[in-house]
Amino acid sequence: MNNFTYCNPTELVFGKDSHLQTGSLIVRALPQAKKIMVVYGGGSAVRSGVLASVVESCEKAGLLVVVKGGVRPNPTVDFVRECVDFARAEKVDMFLAVGGGSVIDTAKAAALGVCYEGDVWDFFCGKAQPQQALPVCTVLTIPAAGSEQSIRTVISNGNVKAGAGNALVRPKLSIVNPELFFTLPQRQVSAGIIDMMSHIMERYFTNTPGVDYTSAQAEAALRVIMRNGLKLMEKIDDYEAWCEIGLAGSFAHNGYFGLGHEEDWACHGIEHALSGWDDRIIHGEGLAVVIPSWMSYVWPVNPARFVRFAHEVFGVTGDQDDETTIKLAIAKFCSFLIQMNLPTKLSQLTEREVPIKEIAQASVGAATLGHFKALNEQDVEAILVNAR
Amino acid sequence: MNNFTYCNPTELVFGKDSHLQTGSLIVRALPQAKKIMVVYGGGSAVRSGVLASVVESCEKAGLLVVVKGGVRPNPTVDFVRECVDFARAEKVDMFLAVGGGSVIDTAKAAALGVCYEGDVWDFFCGKAQPQQALPVCTVLTIPAAGSEQSIRTVISNGNVKAGAGNALVRPKLSIVNPELFFTLPQRQVSAGIIDMMSHIMERYFTNTPGVDYTSAQAEAALRVIMRNGLKLMEKIDDYEAWCEIGLAGSFAHNGYFGLGHEEDWACHGIEHALSGWDDRIIHGEGLAVVIPSWMSYVWPVNPARFVRFAHEVFGVTGDQDDETTIKLAIAKFCSFLIQMNLPTKLSQLTEREVPIKEIAQASVGAATLGHFKALNEQDVEAILVNAR
Repeated sequence: MNNFTYCNPTELVFGKDSHLQTGSLIVRALPQAKKIMVVYGGGSAVRSGVLASVVESCEKAGLLVVVKGGVRPNPTVDFVRECVDFARAEKVDMFLAVGGGSVIDTAKAAALGVCYEGDVWDFFCGKAQPQQALPVCTVLTIPAAGSEQSIRTVISNGNVKAGAGNALVRPKLSIVNPELFFTLPQRQVSAGIIDMMSHIMERYFTNTPGVDYTSAQAEAALRVIMRNGLKLMEKIDDYEAWCEIGLAGSFAHNGYFGLGHEEDWACHGIEHALSGWDDRIIHGEGLAVVIPSWMSYVWPVNPARFVRFAHEVFGVTGDQDDETTIKLAIAKFCSFLIQMNLPTKLSQLTEREVPIKEIAQASVGAATLGHFKALNEQDVEAILVNAR
Repeated sequence: MNNFTYCNPTELVFGKDSHLQTGSLIVRALPQAKKIMVVYGGGSAVRSGVLASVVESCEKAGLLVVVKGGVRPNPTVDFVRECVDFARAEKVDMFLAVGGGSVIDTAKAAALGVCYEGDVWDFFCGKAQPQQALPVCTVLTIPAAGSEQSIRTVISNGNVKAGAGNALVRPKLSIVNPELFFTLPQRQVSAGIIDMMSHIMERYFTNTPGVDYTSAQAEAALRVIMRNGLKLMEKIDDYEAWCEIGLAGSFAHNGYFGLGHEEDWACHGIEHALSGWDDRIIHGEGLAVVIPSWMSYVWPVNPARFVRFAHEVFGVTGDQDDETTIKLAIAKFCSFLIQMNLPTKLSQLTEREVPIKEIAQASVGAATLGHFKALNEQDVEAILVNAR
C-alpha cells in the first residue's frame, strides 16, 4: 500500500426533503455568508420547482440571493467567465450549485476564478495553481459526476476538455434528496450510473500491491450500483434504489475508493477527448463505449487484478483459465451496459465518423495516458478501433 | 433508508514514517497552535522511541511541547481531571494523543474539560453538552478503538464506564504508521481486531430497510479484517496486512458504516458494564464473549438480516433453513475468534464469578439497551448466562 493523506470535510445532508433546509444549513456551515450566487442549468430546475424552493429557503434564512442559469452539459469556460464577472459585479461571497456535475463544476471553476486576477482557464491548462476560492455548496439534482463531494472540476474550451483538482473547491455542504431524481430522463439515469461506476473503476484498476481494504470497498460499491441501477430501469421512482445510487455516486469520486494506491484515469482521458470533439456526446455514454474496449486491451498487464474483478464484481466462478475468466467478466459488464440501454460501440455513440488519430492525440497529449498501462497514441487508437 | 447528515473532516495521514512528520503536519493543520500537550500511556511509547520522535518533530516545527504520560487501559476520569489541571496550568492550546483508544479518549475528554467550568464527568453522565473543545490530534500506536477518526470518548468513573460523543472532539489530524504496530503483544492485536469488527457490526445489525450500500461496505470491511487479522497471527510484522487492518480499523468507527440506518450498540453496552465491574477485562476480549451470545439471542427479531450476514460475511451457502444458516454463521464467527486466540466464554475472561444481575442492571440502566432488539435486564441476563 502506498502512503497517502485523505481528508474529506464535505458535509453531506442526505434524504427526503433535505433541499428544503438549504438556507439554514448554509447559515450553519458558513456563518459568514451573506450573499450567495445560485448557479443552475436548464429549465428542469425551474419546472420542477426545486430552484424556487431552494431560493426561498435561502432567503428565509436571511441570505441575499442572485441567480444565474444556463449551464449546459460539457460546460464551457466562456460560461464560467460570465459567472466570474457576474459574481464580482454582485460581490457574492459563495456559490450554490443546484444541478448535476456540469452545474457544480461550473460553480467550482467560477469560485476559483473570482479569487484570481488572471484568466480562469489558467487552472485547467496548468499555467496556475489555485491559492484561494470562494466556498461552494451544492443541491444535487443528477447523481452521476460525484462532483458534490469531489475536489475536481472539468471544463471545456473549444475542443479541449480539461480538469483541475484542488481541495479548495471541495464543496463545504452537499444536499442530496433522492426524490429529486424521479423525473430524470432514462438516458441520463443510465449515463450517470456508468459515470459513477467509472469513478470507482478508474481507481480500482491499479498495479499497487496490497490494498485489499480499498479494493473490497470498491467491489461492494460496484455491485450495489449495478443491482440498484437495474431496479431503476424497472421503476424510476424507486426511492430506496435511488438512495443506494445517490449514496454510492456521491462517495464514488471523493477519493475513498483510491486510498493507498495509484489510480488510472485513461478511460476518462479518452472520453474527454471524444466529448471535447463533439459536445453532443454524453460523458457517461462515451465512457460506456470506451471502458470495455480499454479492458480488453489492457488486462494482460496485470491479469490477477482482472481475475479478482471478475470474481468479486461479476461473480465469475469455475476453473477456466484466467483469460477466459476475464473475458467472461468483460462480457458480463457489456451485458449490464446493454441492459441499461447504454451504447457499447462508437457507431452507437455518434453518426459522425470518429477521427481516431485526432482523438488519440488529444487524449494522450505530450506524454502517456493512464497508469494501469501507460497508453501511447497507438494504444489509444487500437482501443478506439476495437470500439468501432 | 433514513435521512442523515455526515461530515468527517479528520485529516488521515497514513503510511511508513508518517509519524516523523507530526510537527509539520500539525503546523499546517492548525496554524494557530503554539503549545501542545502530548498525552501518552505506559512505557512502550517511550521504549519504542515513538514518543521521542514525535516530540522532536514537534519541537523542530517550532511548537512548545509538554508531556503527560500514564494513561491506563479503561482510562479514568481522575486521570482526565489531572490532564485538565495540567493543561490549564501550562496554557496549552491543543492535545496530541500518542497511543491507542485509551490515550486518545483521555485527550478528547481533557480537551472538553479544559473549556468547561464544571467537572468533565458532566459530559459523560449527561448533565452537560459540550460547547467547545481544544483541538485534538493523534499518532496511533494501537489499531482497535477507531478513536482516531471518531467523535466518541469513553471514560471510567469507579464502576461506571460511560461514553460521550461530539463532533468537537473528532481529531483534526490522525497519523497512522502501520510499522508502529509490529511490536504489539498478540493479545492486544486480537482484542483490537474484534473491537474494530464490533464497531462495524454494532452499525450493521439494524432493522432499517434498504441500506444496501452501507451494508455491502460493512460486509466487505469485515471480510478484509478477518482475512488480514489471520495473517497477523502468522506474521506479526506483515506490513501489508497491518495496512489493511489499520485502514479498516480507522474507518470502522467514523460513522461511515452506519450511514442511513439505526445502529445497535447493545454489545458495547454490556461489555462496558463488564469492564466497569473489573477493569482488568480487556474491552476487545469482553466483546468477543458478548457478541456471539448476543447474536444467538437476538437473531429471531430479523432473520433476514442475519441470513444476509451469513451469506456475505461468512460465505454460508446451501439450501438449509434460515435458522441453520444463521447458526452456521455464528459458529464460523466463533471459530474465527478461537483462531485469533480470543475468549468466547465468560469463564475464559475472568476467574471471578461474574455478578450477572448487577452487570445486566448496569448495562441496561433506566430504559432498554440497543435497537436491533431493545434489551431489558432479563434479556441481558439471558445473554450473559448463555455466555458462561
